[in-house]
Amino acid sequence: MRAAIIAIGSEMLGPSRLDTNSLKLTSALEEFNIELARKSVVGDSLDDLADEIRYAFDRVDVLIVTGGLGPTEDDLTREALAKAFGFEMDVDQSIIERIEARFAARGWKMPEVNKRQARVFRGQTTLTNERGTAPGFHLQVDGKNVWVFPGVPHEMEWMSATYLRPWLESIGGSKRLRRVLKVSGLTESGVEERLKPFYDAHKGEALTILASGGQIELHLLQSDPEEIASRERELLDIFEHRVFGFDDDLLESVIGKLLLERKETLATAESCTGGLLGSRITDIAGSSRYYLGGGVCYTAGAKTDLAGVNPELIREHGEVSEPVAIALAAGIRQRFGTTWGVGVTGIAGPGGGTEAKPVGTVHIAVAGPAQVKHRKLLWAGPRSVIKWYSTQAALDLLRLVILRHEP
Amino acid sequence: MRAAIIAIGSEMLGPSRLDTNSLKLTSALEEFNIELARKSVVGDSLDDLADEIRYAFDRVDVLIVTGGLGPTEDDLTREALAKAFGFEMDVDQSIIERIEARFAARGWKMPEVNKRQARVFRGQTTLTNERGTAPGFHLQVDGKNVWVFPGVPHEMEWMSATYLRPWLESIGGSKRLRRVLKVSGLTESGVEERLKPFYDAHKGEALTILASGGQIELHLLQSDPEEIASRERELLDIFEHRVFGFDDDLLESVIGKLLLERKETLATAESCTGGLLGSRITDIAGSSRYYLGGGVCYTAGAKTDLAGVNPELIREHGEVSEPVAIALAAGIRQRFGTTWGVGVTGIAGPGGGTEAKPVGTVHIAVAGPAQVKHRKLLWAGPRSVIKWYSTQAALDLLRLVILRHEP
Repeated sequence: MRAAIIAIGSEMLGPSRLDTNSLKLTSALEEFNIELARKSVVGDSLDDLADEIRYAFDRVDVLIVTGGLGPTEDDLTREALAKAFGFEMDVDQSIIERIEARFAARGWKMPEVNKRQARVFRGQTTLTNERGTAPGFHLQVDGKNVWVFPGVPHEMEWMSATYLRPWLESIGGSKRLRRVLKVSGLTESGVEERLKPFYDAHKGEALTILASGGQIELHLLQSDPEEIASRERELLDIFEHRVFGFDDDLLESVIGKLLLERKETLATAESCTGGLLGSRITDIAGSSRYYLGGGVCYTAGAKTDLAGVNPELIREHGEVSEPVAIALAAGIRQRFGTTWGVGVTGIAGPGGGTEAKPVGTVHIAVAGPAQVKHRKLLWAGPRSVIKWYSTQAALDLLRLVILRHEP
Repeated sequence: MRAAIIAIGSEMLGPSRLDTNSLKLTSALEEFNIELARKSVVGDSLDDLADEIRYAFDRVDVLIVTGGLGPTEDDLTREALAKAFGFEMDVDQSIIERIEARFAARGWKMPEVNKRQARVFRGQTTLTNERGTAPGFHLQVDGKNVWVFPGVPHEMEWMSATYLRPWLESIGGSKRLRRVLKVSGLTESGVEERLKPFYDAHKGEALTILASGGQIELHLLQSDPEEIASRERELLDIFEHRVFGFDDDLLESVIGKLLLERKETLATAESCTGGLLGSRITDIAGSSRYYLGGGVCYTAGAKTDLAGVNPELIREHGEVSEPVAIALAAGIRQRFGTTWGVGVTGIAGPGGGTEAKPVGTVHIAVAGPAQVKHRKLLWAGPRSVIKWYSTQAALDLLRLVILRHEP
């Protein structure tokens, strides 16, 4: 079974507003195993709307339309549906009375324009909207189902919970499970290559790969709990410790859990990331139980003053170097008396690069009770990307060192 | 002239992700007075994609397609375009070499799958992507224009600025001017209220109000340069020093400019924001010329050790208090020998609140050569929101103190 969503309203075609109603709807569809084939936003033009409704309707089993049910002249969803499906319309006097009563309750008189909202489709189901003036509709056309809801988010949400979800359940859509595995330290194409045998073994099954911000999500969707558990085990065999977490896990939350379990603590010394690493770590509720703080060491002087980096080391190797990253990690660890110290130093650009140390060169180091680990990285992109990827690599190196996956 | 946008990728049809690229594109279209008729999101199915491309293409003059240009098997945009328009494809060896060089720069070998990204349309224009591996395309079909960009946001943005905007300009769309005024320290309804006389004086003119992340943008759109300058002056008269910047300005970039002009320097001592303030300041290229660094003082010990806060003060007033915020600002200023010091301490929650100091209580302070300024704030929302709003308030207080708008 396939579905489509159409959001109606010119205001969602400007640079400042997105259709967010569809997120609530897709969540319901996904749970009941109904594939969303497409979603679209169309402006308030009768011909465009009728066309779009017809086009989407022809391609799916369930069409959901939101918005354009208000009382004003540019609310054309009713007219567009009538045009697309050749419906006759009636005026439902009881709807006028309901709207009049709603206005009266606030001491107001119903404006004449609101009568447009009482236009219903002959022989089709009108859905009472207890959250607003615009009723919705459930239309049945050629054995397919069309659901029409108002666009005001809290009204839409109420209509979806009250009418759509019970219907999805009633038509017996097998409920599906989602499991997300999160992978770090590999590129998207690297992940893809390792997945080849998995793909071949499970052709036609849903596996979505999502790369963003230096990590890759593998989304499994299955109806059978045993099936999804078995697929998860296969993926774990392929990616091993490269899987840093599941579902809502973040690198920073995983590190938090590891440190709490071990009763260990952490401090950071950041140069090019400017505090982003500390900020990510402290995005996690309860991080004060393991994160003690750190230094933003944006100058050579600050590296020495806050993290005790030997000025000789900086003179000899430069601020962006392996020895300085290591000294930052070891120095901040010592200063805070923590189990772990992380150091980051690099060139975020766009200026400051040289041939030997181009923009994007970043050194990260993790110092622990037994050893210090270091990585040299080279990122491409604007400052914000270089900063983000550097924190990502630093958190991942810390994770691997804590788990002793770093030889 | 009408345009349509298609965003390609099944991940944007789930409940967890929206197409946000279209916002950048609609902003460019709006500026050049090109109407956006529709936008849609389609999953990674060849037939659906080819259908959608053809359907949208038939209805507009300019079609913009984003996403689905990656190296993996479900990246089908190239194939769908070829199918929709009957194009022949070639492999462009120079693209393979570019991608190989990109991987080699990181010491990696290019995975075989990336070769898919070297497939180009015979007789059509390939657009070099300096931000990633996937090239884009400019296709001309039946006298209409189709632009194809990668879906990774920072790559898409670069492609749009580099190729689409100059083209929109070249085809002579009557250019509209956009001027954005950015306001801090007021709520959206506070801004609305002050705008009432402006609205009444200029009925029917475009003024968009956009509130997000603790600041409010006022977007003027006008064809006539004198008209827009005059509207801007009116808005400046209304909001005065509450206007912190224009167009692409950020609070952190405005502060950078002020400090550079004055040859002044800055250090930060953060508790509840955990480094976010330093990270925002260092998002600005060249920030090392005025930002020397700071301390992430997540514990009482760190507040004393890094920013020299008297432990007595903490015992007496608690870590989240006016005196401690002031001591953080003054202490870090002294430690770094900077012109300005900023201190932030608060309760980001969800735990740690009390009746006297509920979650969301934050104290910020700015210490300068002559004086120290303090604000007590109370935010509602999750950790990330409390952290962000706190940095927003701290940066704005710093701005007002530097400009001597704080008595």
